Amino acid sequence: MRAVDIIIKKRDGGVLTRDEISFFVAGVTNGSWPDYQASSLLMAIVLRGMTPEETAWLTDAMVTSGIRVDLRGIPGTKVDKHSTGGVGDKTSLILAPVVAACGLPVPMMSGRGLGHTGGTLDKLESIPGFCVRLDLDDMTRALEKVGCAMIGQTDRIAPADRTLYSLRDVTGTIESIPLISASIMSKKIAEGIDALVLDVKTGSGAFMKTEADSRRLAQSLVSIGNASGVKTEAIISDMDAPLGRAVGNAVEVVECIEAMRGNAPADLMEVTMALIVPLLMLGKVADTAADATRIAQRAIDSGAALERFRQIIENQGGDPRVVDDLSRLPRSDKQHAVKADRSGWLVRMDAELIGRASVALGAGRDRVEDAVDPAVGLLVNAKPGDPVRAGDPLVDIQYRDNQRLERALELVTRAIVIGDAPPPARPLILGEVR
Amino acid sequence: MRAVDIIIKKRDGGVLTRDEISFFVAGVTNGSWPDYQASSLLMAIVLRGMTPEETAWLTDAMVTSGIRVDLRGIPGTKVDKHSTGGVGDKTSLILAPVVAACGLPVPMMSGRGLGHTGGTLDKLESIPGFCVRLDLDDMTRALEKVGCAMIGQTDRIAPADRTLYSLRDVTGTIESIPLISASIMSKKIAEGIDALVLDVKTGSGAFMKTEADSRRLAQSLVSIGNASGVKTEAIISDMDAPLGRAVGNAVEVVECIEAMRGNAPADLMEVTMALIVPLLMLGKVADTAADATRIAQRAIDSGAALERFRQIIENQGGDPRVVDDLSRLPRSDKQHAVKADRSGWLVRMDAELIGRASVALGAGRDRVEDAVDPAVGLLVNAKPGDPVRAGDPLVDIQYRDNQRLERALELVTRAIVIGDAPPPARPLILGEVR
Repeated sequence: MRAVDIIIKKRDGGVLTRDEISFFVAGVTNGSWPDYQASSLLMAIVLRGMTPEETAWLTDAMVTSGIRVDLRGIPGTKVDKHSTGGVGDKTSLILAPVVAACGLPVPMMSGRGLGHTGGTLDKLESIPGFCVRLDLDDMTRALEKVGCAMIGQTDRIAPADRTLYSLRDVTGTIESIPLISASIMSKKIAEGIDALVLDVKTGSGAFMKTEADSRRLAQSLVSIGNASGVKTEAIISDMDAPLGRAVGNAVEVVECIEAMRGNAPADLMEVTMALIVPLLMLGKVADTAADATRIAQRAIDSGAALERFRQIIENQGGDPRVVDDLSRLPRSDKQHAVKADRSGWLVRMDAELIGRASVALGAGRDRVEDAVDPAVGLLVNAKPGDPVRAGDPLVDIQYRDNQRLERALELVTRAIVIGDAPPPARPLILGEVR
Repeated sequence: MRAVDIIIKKRDGGVLTRDEISFFVAGVTNGSWPDYQASSLLMAIVLRGMTPEETAWLTDAMVTSGIRVDLRGIPGTKVDKHSTGGVGDKTSLILAPVVAACGLPVPMMSGRGLGHTGGTLDKLESIPGFCVRLDLDDMTRALEKVGCAMIGQTDRIAPADRTLYSLRDVTGTIESIPLISASIMSKKIAEGIDALVLDVKTGSGAFMKTEADSRRLAQSLVSIGNASGVKTEAIISDMDAPLGRAVGNAVEVVECIEAMRGNAPADLMEVTMALIVPLLMLGKVADTAADATRIAQRAIDSGAALERFRQIIENQGGDPRVVDDLSRLPRSDKQHAVKADRSGWLVRMDAELIGRASVALGAGRDRVEDAVDPAVGLLVNAKPGDPVRAGDPLVDIQYRDNQRLERALELVTRAIVIGDAPPPARPLILGEVR
């Protein structure tokens, strides 16, 4: 088998065999396929596509490039959740403690923020002492002890994905539903979970800008998961405006703790529950959506979810007192309010621009190697559709550096559009894929 | 300017600017574009194409990656000829002396054989002592002294092409009319010529298998040449069967010397004259095709062309006595005749399979680093359309090694198809592009 023949086959629109795909993934992992051949094949895949079978084989080859964690020793349905990334998208920090409090083990592996989207690991690390670098044995112990681990990806999970992703990032080969699907699902399948719920974001702040593309991606992800023995469902949710109020790191943790105290913005809770409900049903904790909603709500109202979050934090070396004392979280001492320059209706609070403002403040990163500032961020006080009056503080910016504030202000100003009439109402949950 | 943005632009079907193309070619030449980004862009170009303007800019950037030779000090229209490669395609060895004998300087830079196609440099080197490694100063002196230099490409001519070609070879990105066009024309334009005639081969033994693709390539090449100030014309000629009788190295030189003695196979002379005539007209040696034909024929009949070939050989260190004494050329002493296994009509003498038989004998190479054996080759005694009788020797094989003979025989046997009726007549010259 020769790399160049496989490249030419895909270039000419052919369907690769399972062996050819395994040869490629193994070659990328062990270095026998040089980068220039891998990138040429990746571009051919972007432009020629892959069948569902090819995509499933690619995913499987990426899973077997590393280990598939064996969590059969832990009783119960092991579940996880994955989002394609958004702005203010903090649902994982609420979902994991709630679901664990409802009795399902949650081995959650998350990523860091990049570009305008935030990352769960960065948010968790804003909790003083919180350590996300657990190895797989630590993860198993955490599941036994507190029913949940919230950690970063380890080297042993889908190593081919790391190599391929870093190559795709610099060769214009990110935007491909088969490649995105295999990247996401290989990591999730390798975690050893039994059930998975996916939040495919769509809109300005999402990776997928159109609902049609988001639906195609959701279908591809669900099909791969189910074919690999992981019961998988997906929702498609709106990401034209930030989710909830807070955008940043510690500010988002504050919002999650408030949510578990029962004080959540409605949109944040709507999406979080839309993800929790199918997980509780897949895990046989509830038979109906109404039951699942009731059980999840009880976990919040009773304080069980927040108590579980406290245990998770403590188990991973963080300061558990933050759940009772939000002032223990880092917070920059400078604040600036962006006010409405006219009265009317808020037509747009552009998620991507707010996300880029967060990066400008230092809360996110443009390059993988950049550090983030846990103490800065934004609070969005109005949603599209809200009436506003001239002078209303629409966005509060917590900043550290005046120059960074200037850059962020320019972006926030562009993100806000006020009009004479409310925009057409748009549902937050746009669809479900099973 | 970022490489990844240029890749994404082309991936999405965009038209690159002149600056973006220059940035790419300069980056490939100086190493600032890593191979994996270059190959990703090359695949995007293969699948998305390039406009004529982009192709011209690419060619120009490749020319300026090296030097454009200045031959203005040599009087007369400097001309060259290029073929896209065939089997038994020896026209250069006749054309160069004839055209030089007609008064036009011929700075000819050629290549080596690869795969089933032969190369002018390998054929010339079968002449004892002949040296093709002249530098550009030697080339100028040769033009002044004998009106012709037949040499290999130097490092200073279009270095970007060498880097790109070796990358394309292993990344499945050879088959692209814009990339092929820029590769061919950048080298020809950099030679410093005023006029060029191209022989675009089509058929089984050609790189372009269909007439439509060959015509597209010819149009692309002619358009680039003319845009760069090189008067360029092309013919499209058939390469379903080998051209002339001889396939190999010394055997082809023998056939060319015989041709200049007036003993050429008709098909070889037809294609050679179809290339000489436009060159003589572009060089203002003749006003009409009939005049050009007459002048070229006189150069052959008078012995001027053969005398010029003798001078070219002598000037480049070769043994000039070969033109009078063909036994001074290397020739293996073992011969094997492949005979017709039935009577009928020769329907097919497949050029690609005969070319591969030549490689099997050692006359060609599968890998750039292989050496060739100047003394082996094939003589094809019948053309498609000829009547044959069982037992007729259709192909004479000159070989050195029995094992290699076996491999060649298997290919030659498959190349020959005898039927009950003659095949449809097919013209040798399929078209012209000006």
